[in-house]
Amino acid sequence: MDSHVTDLTGLTAADAARRIATGEITSAMLVEACLARIKERDESVQAWEHLDEEFALEQARRADERRAQDLSAGPLHGVPVGIKDIIDTCDFPTENGTPAHAGRQPGDDAVLVSQLKDAGAIILGKTVTTELAVLHPARTRNPHNLEHTPGGSSSGSAAAVADNMAPLAIGTQTGGSVIRPASFCGVYGFKPTHAMISRTGVLMQAPPLDTIGVFARSVEDLGLITDCLTAYDARDAWMRPRSRSRLRDMALREPPVDPVFAFVKSPPWDEFAEDATKQAFPELVEALGEQCDEVELPQVFSAALVMQKLIQTADIAKFYGPISAKAPDVISAALSERIEQGKSITAVDYNTALGVREALNAGLDEVFERYDAIITPASPGPAPKGLGATGSPVFNSMWTYLGVPCVTVPLLEADGLPMGVQLVGARHDDGRLLRNARWLVEHLSASSDNE
Amino acid sequence: MDSHVTDLTGLTAADAARRIATGEITSAMLVEACLARIKERDESVQAWEHLDEEFALEQARRADERRAQDLSAGPLHGVPVGIKDIIDTCDFPTENGTPAHAGRQPGDDAVLVSQLKDAGAIILGKTVTTELAVLHPARTRNPHNLEHTPGGSSSGSAAAVADNMAPLAIGTQTGGSVIRPASFCGVYGFKPTHAMISRTGVLMQAPPLDTIGVFARSVEDLGLITDCLTAYDARDAWMRPRSRSRLRDMALREPPVDPVFAFVKSPPWDEFAEDATKQAFPELVEALGEQCDEVELPQVFSAALVMQKLIQTADIAKFYGPISAKAPDVISAALSERIEQGKSITAVDYNTALGVREALNAGLDEVFERYDAIITPASPGPAPKGLGATGSPVFNSMWTYLGVPCVTVPLLEADGLPMGVQLVGARHDDGRLLRNARWLVEHLSASSDNE
Repeated sequence: MDSHVTDLTGLTAADAARRIATGEITSAMLVEACLARIKERDESVQAWEHLDEEFALEQARRADERRAQDLSAGPLHGVPVGIKDIIDTCDFPTENGTPAHAGRQPGDDAVLVSQLKDAGAIILGKTVTTELAVLHPARTRNPHNLEHTPGGSSSGSAAAVADNMAPLAIGTQTGGSVIRPASFCGVYGFKPTHAMISRTGVLMQAPPLDTIGVFARSVEDLGLITDCLTAYDARDAWMRPRSRSRLRDMALREPPVDPVFAFVKSPPWDEFAEDATKQAFPELVEALGEQCDEVELPQVFSAALVMQKLIQTADIAKFYGPISAKAPDVISAALSERIEQGKSITAVDYNTALGVREALNAGLDEVFERYDAIITPASPGPAPKGLGATGSPVFNSMWTYLGVPCVTVPLLEADGLPMGVQLVGARHDDGRLLRNARWLVEHLSASSDNE
Repeated sequence: MDSHVTDLTGLTAADAARRIATGEITSAMLVEACLARIKERDESVQAWEHLDEEFALEQARRADERRAQDLSAGPLHGVPVGIKDIIDTCDFPTENGTPAHAGRQPGDDAVLVSQLKDAGAIILGKTVTTELAVLHPARTRNPHNLEHTPGGSSSGSAAAVADNMAPLAIGTQTGGSVIRPASFCGVYGFKPTHAMISRTGVLMQAPPLDTIGVFARSVEDLGLITDCLTAYDARDAWMRPRSRSRLRDMALREPPVDPVFAFVKSPPWDEFAEDATKQAFPELVEALGEQCDEVELPQVFSAALVMQKLIQTADIAKFYGPISAKAPDVISAALSERIEQGKSITAVDYNTALGVREALNAGLDEVFERYDAIITPASPGPAPKGLGATGSPVFNSMWTYLGVPCVTVPLLEADGLPMGVQLVGARHDDGRLLRNARWLVEHLSASSDNE
């Protein structure tokens, strides 16, 4: 394979789509390059659960034929996407990261997979997930250092995008399963507002928390793919009909004035932030000067972590209890224990936890009246060493619980590993969040260029 | 007061609104007539919790002035409405039927009260509710026989409309609190599809079940008032934006072909239906001839009553537990016991009960593919004697749980008391349900005229 083709693996999705649209490259060239990269690297990285080279190339050839015939093409025409293996696909098994579902073959695509196909995307394959998208790790390694975890639960999706195996991948976040692995793997990760993307056909873990998220190589790409996934789906009981999102346009727009950020350490800072984080964030705040104030959330926000865990644990008991009852021997000890804990949580506590969320969001709205976005760690530090755990979601769970949009941008480095900066926005103001994230990336790279 | 004015109390709301619009009568005349009727009767019936004659007349005079100036008038311009006393009103206290909330004065109107005002309605006063809209009875009597219960929990709303004190009233149903009292009091009652009317500013008992309903003197009136209340309210988390309802128009339209009904005895029939019901319904089915088949629901529907009670009891513990903890001495023994029961219900069971509902609704959809509406009892029989209980919601709870629209029409009589016939429709097909209800009323009165 010549170097021209190999270089394609580093393209952003927007760039790849543009080149395919103009005929500069074909989808088949891009997909071949990704497959070659996977062949070269995946024995080490282990990002993929199900791959089908022939099927991927066939999709690419069909996309190229359509383009040759000038047939209408979606915004992701010919661009390959990796799909976390808890998301149903009729072309690949969907095994949910557990031997209990070995060989499980859905008859239908999840709604979001249909939407990707409608947008012209190539379904490249299924990416490795932790056990049932909870904490028990799978075999995936961090492409930046194979002895370190890639994070989880969307381990394969984050690693695949980081290692140039695919320009885009889909993940899910119930605690910290998109933002944390994106931070550890040094890619852009986006968890939109809760239930902005349909969860029909996706393994349910805790519906009030479960959120589809995306991995990419630029803020623009996060908007590009998310815009393809926000059509209303009445079968997702938490969705509301909304006008079609224009996140990509918003992400590319210049803010009317320079945004002002609120640096929020958030409740776990003292106990969980690692030295790298405790050093990097004050420096970041200083670099932003007048564009950033440190803001302390009211004390009551410290309840959020407990509430998130309560909802997640009760729903894990509901949705995974029956799986564990059928196949107790293949469920990890930690998950079995959590299922047992969840069974005794009362409906009053569960519904109280849902109610508190509304109260906390009202408090958060006040922050967003004064600041354009919150800046906060995406993870306690860089990816921890070892593959026996996927790191802590403690800097993510509160935001997942609140349902607010979160994006992580790979701006920091520590111990030779990447580390993300998380930005948090107001619910349903996802476009503004992406705009501010892009501003931050460009502003900081401009200032470091001037140093 | 002359007889001309007294007669106004028997008008339907549509007729009253039309006469006010044409200038044949004034709103003040109508309100005066209602107040006179209340003065005459309410010492016996006890339907009203809060009344303010001067305020009612002032609203009426303002309505008449607006009409005289040809200012735009809503569909309920000048028509008085009674409001159940668990619905917040800034012009009257809202005491929720419990001494624990004695003197409670909301600062804001519930959304539905604002919508009534926007439609031009006169807020006549607050109607008596049972304790916190559960089973413990209040003082209201059945206007058809003062020794019998009017049913509950919307006791005063049903009795007020039945006794010509107001042409319209608002109630709520979490188990059987609209359809049952409407049946007992011989008025038209309508529980629309769940969350079609905003519950913001209404006492929460169990949000997955709580449904606003209406009482009136004709099917057309049920549509008329409901159409004023279906605008989207984002603060009610269960609402979805929908196009404005046209229930009144639908109710008045002729069905394209004569509807075919499914007579469903429903699970409680054998144990709970009284002799009057067991005699009247087969006769009704026979009178309908080819327009009605008896249909048996699948066995699994017998779980619905248990599931409804589980959700209601767990949420009673959540929402009323804190009230009881603050003022334990004023909460009835039965409600205190139910709160205690509710505290131990698990989140898994609660969420399972919510999940089962979707499965049962899929089964019900099959019935509605073959039949235009279900016919089923509205109550076990006519209003029971005594004021120590409000009768059983056992023929209502399943439908409330399923979230389907229900209407009761006062077609039957037993032991000198009225008895309703309940019609049930498919979710979000409320207009068709009202159309079929009107057809049934007219068809049966035409056939009895011919006898």
